[in-house]
Amino acid sequence: MSHPALRLDDVVHQRVRLGILAVLAEAKRADFGYLRDALDLSDGNLSRHIQVLEEAGLVSVEKGYEGRRPRTWVSATKRGRTALDAELGSLRELISRVDGKP
Amino acid sequence: MSHPALRLDDVVHQRVRLGILAVLAEAKRADFGYLRDALDLSDGNLSRHIQVLEEAGLVSVEKGYEGRRPRTWVSATKRGRTALDAELGSLRELISRVDGKP
Repeated sequence: MSHPALRLDDVVHQRVRLGILAVLAEAKRADFGYLRDALDLSDGNLSRHIQVLEEAGLVSVEKGYEGRRPRTWVSATKRGRTALDAELGSLRELISRVDGKP
Repeated sequence: MSHPALRLDDVVHQRVRLGILAVLAEAKRADFGYLRDALDLSDGNLSRHIQVLEEAGLVSVEKGYEGRRPRTWVSATKRGRTALDAELGSLRELISRVDGKP
């Protein structure tokens, strides 16, 4: 059987993007500033990774206002949730192999 | 508490390098060709990632012969095993958070 590392997808596995999808799995919808602070990123770095996820159809971005403050809301798409599940499944398998539990 | 994604280190987390360290955790010492086939990599791609890991002190490389055949053996250093443990610890925590288990 192939090694679980082969089933990791760089779009989802990359550290920052995995963090974004993980936070969105907990929060359903998150404000740009919340994501930036939760993951300790710069605005530019977060924007860049959100764009990669959006282009892959894994998150959707919605701009709006909360009172007078402009907000950018990010949420995982169904495809994004499926991709995160697949990533976590492969990681669980990889961890089990390293732990010596087949 | 900070998000576990913040504690992932790109040197170890990157898909191919995580695969290399995971295989080495199971096998102690692996031949270059074995790693290449187990992780379905090209020679160049595997070489490049082994070099990154070697420069970070996470693997050691030994060249020798098995009979007349030249072999390149790769093994995880103590530091490499510690780094993999830290990575898997952060991943377990990230998975637990997504699963909603604190």
